[in-house]
Amino acid sequence: MTTQMHNGKKAVILLSGGLDSTTVLAIARAEGYQCYCLSFRYGQKQSVELERATHIARSMGAARHLILGLDLNLIGGSALTTDMIVPKDRDLDDGSSQIPTTYVPARNMIFLCHAVAWAEVLEATDIFIGVNAVDYSGYPDCRPEFIRAFTTMARLGTRAGVEDTQGDSPLTIHTPLIQLSKKEIIEKGLALNIDYSLTHSCYDPVNEKPCGHCDACLLRLKGFAEAGLKDPATYHL
Amino acid sequence: MTTQMHNGKKAVILLSGGLDSTTVLAIARAEGYQCYCLSFRYGQKQSVELERATHIARSMGAARHLILGLDLNLIGGSALTTDMIVPKDRDLDDGSSQIPTTYVPARNMIFLCHAVAWAEVLEATDIFIGVNAVDYSGYPDCRPEFIRAFTTMARLGTRAGVEDTQGDSPLTIHTPLIQLSKKEIIEKGLALNIDYSLTHSCYDPVNEKPCGHCDACLLRLKGFAEAGLKDPATYHL
Repeated sequence: MTTQMHNGKKAVILLSGGLDSTTVLAIARAEGYQCYCLSFRYGQKQSVELERATHIARSMGAARHLILGLDLNLIGGSALTTDMIVPKDRDLDDGSSQIPTTYVPARNMIFLCHAVAWAEVLEATDIFIGVNAVDYSGYPDCRPEFIRAFTTMARLGTRAGVEDTQGDSPLTIHTPLIQLSKKEIIEKGLALNIDYSLTHSCYDPVNEKPCGHCDACLLRLKGFAEAGLKDPATYHL
Repeated sequence: MTTQMHNGKKAVILLSGGLDSTTVLAIARAEGYQCYCLSFRYGQKQSVELERATHIARSMGAARHLILGLDLNLIGGSALTTDMIVPKDRDLDDGSSQIPTTYVPARNMIFLCHAVAWAEVLEATDIFIGVNAVDYSGYPDCRPEFIRAFTTMARLGTRAGVEDTQGDSPLTIHTPLIQLSKKEIIEKGLALNIDYSLTHSCYDPVNEKPCGHCDACLLRLKGFAEAGLKDPATYHL
């Protein structure tokens, strides 16, 4: 990738190593931020994503990459962190609003709170997260109204907000993908020269390879197909 | 302590093992909740509090006690989690609104989010936290307006809130100490038969004994003195 000018501002980027968060990192970088990437080892089945995140952060010129531990597997309640089976070959267009078992209770708010903590220490006021409310709206913590409420809460609960009962500190949660389809996300990322072969999206990898059948794989494959492209990931079987 | 009837409802109690959270546990218990206590090993200097929390949870009949790991020391920014010196013998009545160095960035919101996660898995809608805005108002994340904003955010970001864009799910954050002085907290706890010798409040213990000089010790000592009592804790020197 070409060298970017930076605007002198630091930003914390939540980076899972997947397609969405990698695109978000490229967007933040293109906007000139110094990118402080944050990942979590939270007991997920797809911990291979952390190696990808490390590689991606390095190859995309992140200022720093921090991987933090969380014990979300001890809380449980999700197919991503327990023995519960990850659903395969679901019909994602059935219009159901039921929350899938791959939802991890309170995960995004826990990730975002850590980003807020690190931003305070870095004296940064910009946080980027790759949540998406369009292609797949089953997760409560990917919705615009959640992000708005989180911002209000975080502004009040931090140093910058201590004398600010109106919640108008400058802390901002950027969600550049929230209204895009997977196809649009991929097109945006390719325009920013992302090498999507580096990314890992699968919830339930087999020998570190994507399964091709979980919701994350199906959405990703559909996105590439709609963009008229072949997914560069190497799938299992 | 006497056996309590319970109201059949589960509650998650954030329990540090200090005076405030132990009082909150006694209050929740007296209100009839089945108490699921949650503590964190977050890189704090005062990790002795976790042994106390374990003892307290057991002796007060908690349904369960979970200790989760967090890497807040890797984020830093606080005298509780880094080499930074814990301030001693400060004048706590100087009217300063400056945030002390013992503030841990975003700690309370991280703790509360984990409580929200566990509550979802337990199918509980009640969370108790011992924040206090009276005796010492230097922490942004102990204020009523923060708790209100957190509740709105948590309602929208969880299973119960997925079809609820108004944020009126039943999730409730109970803050029974928020408007009490330390003296009043101690009196309330003693009326509930708490043995405060079990609790640990100090930020900077010496050989696991409270230092007697950090803000937490000073406030605790002041609270007992104002209640006309001797603190049962054994201080260093």
